Amino acid sequence: MTESSIGERVFSLPLRVYIEDTDAGGIVFYANYLKYFERARTEFMRSIGFELRRGMAGNINYVVHSLELKYLRPARLDDLIQVHAQIEKIGRTYLVFQQWVTDENGQSLVTAWVKVACVNFDTAKPRALPSELMAKLA
Amino acid sequence: MTESSIGERVFSLPLRVYIEDTDAGGIVFYANYLKYFERARTEFMRSIGFELRRGMAGNINYVVHSLELKYLRPARLDDLIQVHAQIEKIGRTYLVFQQWVTDENGQSLVTAWVKVACVNFDTAKPRALPSELMAKLA
Amino acid sequence: MTESSIGERVFSLPLRVYIEDTDAGGIVFYANYLKYFERARTEFMRSIGFELRRGMAGNINYVVHSLELKYLRPARLDDLIQVHAQIEKIGRTYLVFQQWVTDENGQSLVTAWVKVACVNFDTAKPRALPSELMAKLA
Amino acid sequence: MTESSIGERVFSLPLRVYIEDTDAGGIVFYANYLKYFERARTEFMRSIGFELRRGMAGNINYVVHSLELKYLRPARLDDLIQVHAQIEKIGRTYLVFQQWVTDENGQSLVTAWVKVACVNFDTAKPRALPSELMAKLA
Repeated sequence: MTESSIGERVFSLPLRVYIEDTDAGGIVFYANYLKYFERARTEFMRSIGFELRRGMAGNINYVVHSLELKYLRPARLDDLIQVHAQIEKIGRTYLVFQQWVTDENGQSLVTAWVKVACVNFDTAKPRALPSELMAKLA
Repeated sequence: MTESSIGERVFSLPLRVYIEDTDAGGIVFYANYLKYFERARTEFMRSIGFELRRGMAGNINYVVHSLELKYLRPARLDDLIQVHAQIEKIGRTYLVFQQWVTDENGQSLVTAWVKVACVNFDTAKPRALPSELMAKLA
Repeated sequence: MTESSIGERVFSLPLRVYIEDTDAGGIVFYANYLKYFERARTEFMRSIGFELRRGMAGNINYVVHSLELKYLRPARLDDLIQVHAQIEKIGRTYLVFQQWVTDENGQSLVTAWVKVACVNFDTAKPRALPSELMAKLA
Repeated sequence: MTESSIGERVFSLPLRVYIEDTDAGGIVFYANYLKYFERARTEFMRSIGFELRRGMAGNINYVVHSLELKYLRPARLDDLIQVHAQIEKIGRTYLVFQQWVTDENGQSLVTAWVKVACVNFDTAKPRALPSELMAKLA
């Protein structure tokens, strides 16, 4: 796959909204979208052969460097949503993801931009993305 | 208090990092800072006489419209952190907060910009901030 | 289906352990199994035609009355687990579930006994299980 | 302090219920009491000089072995609750806690019995409680 083709690939994860995700306002609590987005990024990486735990065993961790979110419409209990992830940019030490959540009609509920940095697990210092990952992404 | 003076006020909430806040990377999970920030905003509002539940009883809810976060340094288990909130802007239907987390040495760990919209609890449509709140903030 | 046959039915939900579920001890945080168990009970009910939100709209809520858990072996990041639910007893105002989590080898990680009470959403007082539910379960 | 006197000591932690703790039923989500109980046990241990992270650095971890909970009355958004912990039994490799939550009128909301095992951080195998802890508890 070329860099442009990985950039065009959209990974989508269907998720159900459970009572644990909601708050007394009757909607999904705003922090919980970050859990949904993380699950989608993790499954995206798993789909190309990468697992978080295996990375940690090799002293590699991925941490979020920065993010932006816009909450457009609330998701509610029992809703079936789709959580999407697309790689916007591949840096030497980081990945930038576009992410968004849609409802069953395809309407956007939340949009996000997430920059994930590759770090040494023990020191939390930035390090280059593993070469196998670069190879898979390139 | 004038608008400029509320804007100068920094509300600070001391919090302990518990095991529930951490993840297998040994650091605070990135979504949990949104919980910390929400607690600080809530205590800020409580400190000037506003409670979320009372608002909901009056068909008012506050929902996050958009946010930006930068993760500078990780917080870890047992750390005693300070979570700060400052009102940057008061709109007709929203408030904009600057928020940040510092460690025991005063170093910034996470910085945030959070826009909170006032909505009708039942319809989730925007509505003007309650006049008593405007009066307290003005 | 007779009461004994519903009692014999085991509902199983496959789940992946995400970083959000783990703690700094490298294992799934003990409270998060209650989320897993709740998801399995919810999907069990959905599989026979019941949704939580629809219940709430009809002033019905289901709340946990009491539970017992035994933690036998830890689940870890990236593990694929199965969360099981079986109805042990159908009371007039409650259901008792046996629940357990197994790993990919079928080994038990956590076992649980959970009593769920049916209540009025507004008053939180116990009420009889809805007759359609009794009919489906009987 | 003698064993009987530590057993008589009740540690109490005041906590506010935040929106993150609640669910669409308008009450504290049942799993979140396990977070409250863990915070109270952690602060109890800290009050006698023990920190979780320091333990982990010395290859010691504390994991919940089993628990029982009874949910008597719901806590709601903005409630100020007290979370209590009392040591019921000190074993060679474990501690048993009685725990309960009360509201502002002192009424019990949730009661719990929690057995916490001391394990090696790396192998998750049981080990004797550290001798300094035994000394403090005895």
